[in-house]
Amino acid sequence: MNQHSRDPVVIVGGGFGGLAAARALHRMKGEVILIDRMNHHLFQPLLYQVATAALSPADIAWPLRTLLRSQGNVRIMLDDVLAIDRAAHRIELRNGEPVSYSSVVLAPGARHSYFGHNNWEEDAPGLKTLPDALEIRERMLMAFEKAERLKGTPEARDELTFVIVGGGPTGVELAGALAEIGRKAMVPDFPVLHQAACRILLIEGGPRILEAFPPTLSSRAQASLESLGVTVLVNCRVQEVTPKGVLAGAEFIRSAHVIWAAGNVASPMLASLGVPLDSSGRVVVGPDLSLNGDPWVFVIGDAAHCLSAEHKPLPGLAAVAMQEGRYVAEIIAGCVPEDHRRPFRYRDRGMLATIGRAKAVAQFGPLSLSGVVAWLAWCFVHIFFLIGFRNRVRVMFEWIWYYVTFKPGARLIYWKERRIKP
Amino acid sequence: MNQHSRDPVVIVGGGFGGLAAARALHRMKGEVILIDRMNHHLFQPLLYQVATAALSPADIAWPLRTLLRSQGNVRIMLDDVLAIDRAAHRIELRNGEPVSYSSVVLAPGARHSYFGHNNWEEDAPGLKTLPDALEIRERMLMAFEKAERLKGTPEARDELTFVIVGGGPTGVELAGALAEIGRKAMVPDFPVLHQAACRILLIEGGPRILEAFPPTLSSRAQASLESLGVTVLVNCRVQEVTPKGVLAGAEFIRSAHVIWAAGNVASPMLASLGVPLDSSGRVVVGPDLSLNGDPWVFVIGDAAHCLSAEHKPLPGLAAVAMQEGRYVAEIIAGCVPEDHRRPFRYRDRGMLATIGRAKAVAQFGPLSLSGVVAWLAWCFVHIFFLIGFRNRVRVMFEWIWYYVTFKPGARLIYWKERRIKP
Repeated sequence: MNQHSRDPVVIVGGGFGGLAAARALHRMKGEVILIDRMNHHLFQPLLYQVATAALSPADIAWPLRTLLRSQGNVRIMLDDVLAIDRAAHRIELRNGEPVSYSSVVLAPGARHSYFGHNNWEEDAPGLKTLPDALEIRERMLMAFEKAERLKGTPEARDELTFVIVGGGPTGVELAGALAEIGRKAMVPDFPVLHQAACRILLIEGGPRILEAFPPTLSSRAQASLESLGVTVLVNCRVQEVTPKGVLAGAEFIRSAHVIWAAGNVASPMLASLGVPLDSSGRVVVGPDLSLNGDPWVFVIGDAAHCLSAEHKPLPGLAAVAMQEGRYVAEIIAGCVPEDHRRPFRYRDRGMLATIGRAKAVAQFGPLSLSGVVAWLAWCFVHIFFLIGFRNRVRVMFEWIWYYVTFKPGARLIYWKERRIKP
Repeated sequence: MNQHSRDPVVIVGGGFGGLAAARALHRMKGEVILIDRMNHHLFQPLLYQVATAALSPADIAWPLRTLLRSQGNVRIMLDDVLAIDRAAHRIELRNGEPVSYSSVVLAPGARHSYFGHNNWEEDAPGLKTLPDALEIRERMLMAFEKAERLKGTPEARDELTFVIVGGGPTGVELAGALAEIGRKAMVPDFPVLHQAACRILLIEGGPRILEAFPPTLSSRAQASLESLGVTVLVNCRVQEVTPKGVLAGAEFIRSAHVIWAAGNVASPMLASLGVPLDSSGRVVVGPDLSLNGDPWVFVIGDAAHCLSAEHKPLPGLAAVAMQEGRYVAEIIAGCVPEDHRRPFRYRDRGMLATIGRAKAVAQFGPLSLSGVVAWLAWCFVHIFFLIGFRNRVRVMFEWIWYYVTFKPGARLIYWKERRIKP
């Protein structure tokens, strides 16, 4: 490879892509260093269930060290990557000495993007990490407490109006879950509130929600959301977000709780690579997922702009990231030179989005499913992909419990109550 | 009763005492208002397991509204009680209008007490609430991450030295759990650390740990702790706590992690009653748990100084608080006048403390138990007293899982990562 070939392989990020790469390197001789800011791998597809009090953080997260305990060649570092110094083959860290690499897999993921309006974040938090989810959970639970105290005033109405911006899978799943928990689990516990008091609006800028799915599934998903009491607004662009609500199209919607699920921007650390980024801050990679002119620096997952066989950018899905992680691991483990690499090909296994109890949509190749069948497929796939027996049992138990009782398991407010300053 | 007899019965605090009182008032005609700062009832005896990453917050806490959903006469208020105005029969709240009462049950619990050294709290947090537990969990998990980065330096040793001040049940259970998780679950995941690197010290000012138990059980508990690698120091008083460690007796013990389990002080709100308090800030109540001269103001649980039949103050146990709650509810529901009340008598059902896997001590009347039998009794009693089928299943599952795999379920660091300011 080069003069750095005795240095370790470094993986930045322990999400779906980074973890898949680390695992696929299990038979490689050299050392692998996995660097992440958090000590855990997060099963992001179920994060909205933590945000809506159905699941606990520990149900969908696993310590990276435990996951990779049996893999002797992996070292874990809990740190924040500041920059990649490609000339020196080094990674700069916030808390420790720089780490040299022979090859590097960058899988730092993305945060939500406010299209240049970063000041909206305070009033419209997004959902990417456990702290995000607990923040939204606490705001949602406090909304009902406040609304009861404000009994029937306009402020009470604003407290119980939830606006979700962005009609992709996250927005749709969040809207459905909020409608269910709000109307069926929370309202019965607040004697002065009634069902209609809880309003949920889903705002989508494009002509339909779930635009990655076929139009028939989009309209079925919209009908399912509406049957749960969600107001779906399409072709509606958010012009402004304030603490009082959102200006959407020409109308100002008063709401104390706006949640942002409209766009992504890749990690700012990628700018240090000095290579072209797309409009979402993603690195434009070659067909082998490496940088142009630097064949041992790979970018995968939500951080990579990679074209499919049809010349469209691959979607930000866990399945894409995992396949990419395994693909680059194979190149690294085999020391495959640049001109011997077959291009990466994403094998599309299908797409799923759930809306609520026994309501979902699914697309497997030419097959479109909706309703109970799609929902069962969704449950099965998510349980299957959860890591480890413990979490499968816990999540399955929580789902059955919630399905039967409508008493969500994690309706706790404690996040704001920090006694000791950091 | 008096001119306020149409006002509601107010219960301050949704802990063991307050919740037992609210439930025992289920057949009373008038309204009951339960006020708590948190939205949940917490099963405090298992809180140390959240602090040591074995359980999740939602395993041991339940929303008060859900617990009391079926009890039509109870209203829940999420608020902070500032003062009791006995002359006006009113309760002053931080966020809402004052609430009038016909009778009031004060069950606000206690916080830890630093015996006049409140500045120690920053460096020696205590364990009473979920935020406390998550704070300790995060510090403990970060200690191992930092120690690995500091490899073999004296600072690494300080990071892995945990000092627990106070040899009561909380201190003993915390020390045993830290020893187990530290040596058996954490160390194997950190290649540069070894078992002896993790030191746990338990400091007790009196001549023996678990002083409420008979001396034979105290020494068995100490032997069990020592077999787990815990250093137990008795007759040792903490003179000073600093960020670097504790001055205990004549020796300065370097440690980055001191946990306080040494004393309690009742809620400061009780001072507003204008009645005598004992040295722990508890209200000295009459044999019917009411204030002298104010027969419809009751104080129960950790906030009450109540004498047993043997003229000793009752201990701060869940069982005491629950029996007291039911006792005062009976008086209130029956409008029993002051001179017709039989005095409160605590029926002692026994005491238990666990040390670790298959290690515990138990005292049931004349019967002293230790080892596996006591541990099974401990498990059974704690599962039995957990509220609700869901939590029993979850906790039992977590215990069996941890017993078999030594992979604690909630080893997550996310608490410090708050993105949005409150």
